[in-house]
Amino acid sequence: MRKIDALCVSGEAQPLIEGDMKIRGELKQIGVVHSPYQERMGAPSQGRHTNEESTLEVFADYEPALLDVEQCSHLIVLYWQDRANRSILQTRTPWGPEVHGVFATRSPNRPNPIGLCVVKLVEREGRFLKVQGMDALDGSPLIDIKPYSHHIDSVQDARVGWHKRGDIKAKK
Amino acid sequence: MRKIDALCVSGEAQPLIEGDMKIRGELKQIGVVHSPYQERMGAPSQGRHTNEESTLEVFADYEPALLDVEQCSHLIVLYWQDRANRSILQTRTPWGPEVHGVFATRSPNRPNPIGLCVVKLVEREGRFLKVQGMDALDGSPLIDIKPYSHHIDSVQDARVGWHKRGDIKAKK
Repeated sequence: MRKIDALCVSGEAQPLIEGDMKIRGELKQIGVVHSPYQERMGAPSQGRHTNEESTLEVFADYEPALLDVEQCSHLIVLYWQDRANRSILQTRTPWGPEVHGVFATRSPNRPNPIGLCVVKLVEREGRFLKVQGMDALDGSPLIDIKPYSHHIDSVQDARVGWHKRGDIKAKK
Repeated sequence: MRKIDALCVSGEAQPLIEGDMKIRGELKQIGVVHSPYQERMGAPSQGRHTNEESTLEVFADYEPALLDVEQCSHLIVLYWQDRANRSILQTRTPWGPEVHGVFATRSPNRPNPIGLCVVKLVEREGRFLKVQGMDALDGSPLIDIKPYSHHIDSVQDARVGWHKRGDIKAKK
């Protein structure tokens, strides 16, 4: 059984469904990514294994939600890839000429361009988190931060069959 | 250098930023989760290690985006926790009486209640994906599907310091 007690701040939950087939509503920007990458051509395809540091700035309104985040060695960061093309459903990748559905790739171009990076938390200073492993472009809106759990998030034997090496690897 | 060629479908990319501080816009519902969990009390805190099967129904408009997804052994599924409370910034968890910031927990209650599950893909039948490992409530809107890559998504030595065992574990 699950029970969660909660401290609330002002503001009400907003149901996001109108009709049966749509989510409408507002994604809240909780902060902004400060990264070394000004444009896509300079950004790594996947940031995980870069040593470059980015800073996640969480807006002051959301700073209470960071309590104890410094106790997490790694984080899952969700951000909005605001320069992506949301109309693309199939795409080529940097790894070959074949066309794949975007749900079988990590392309930023997808119906909901939510970027996901697993990052190492280097340091927290107030509402600023210095991290390694982001591939987000500078200025990308932050939308969520979650603690990474190796128990629930790590799968050693996962395979991506369309990739010739059986997995999507970091490639600059 | 990164270069992506793309097949487009109708519809234009929609910039989501208005002003400096806000994301406004529409999350597109790409499908729906059919799960055995009708209410939160019956759902696992984390679905990863359950054997229960859920079915991800992708709407017909987005079926082309599934091309080759059956080649992925595991997927990252993002869904909208439409019954969550978006105003909560700090919360207790099922693991203890301490209060943590929601960004240091996996609570569904958070500013943007985007649920994230790493699932095993059991079977694809057209636009229906049978998966193991979801904890989403029945009827939750689907918002993204990504291939899981052990190279970029798996961190064996991650630690969550506030948890007495050093990690967030599945708990029914």
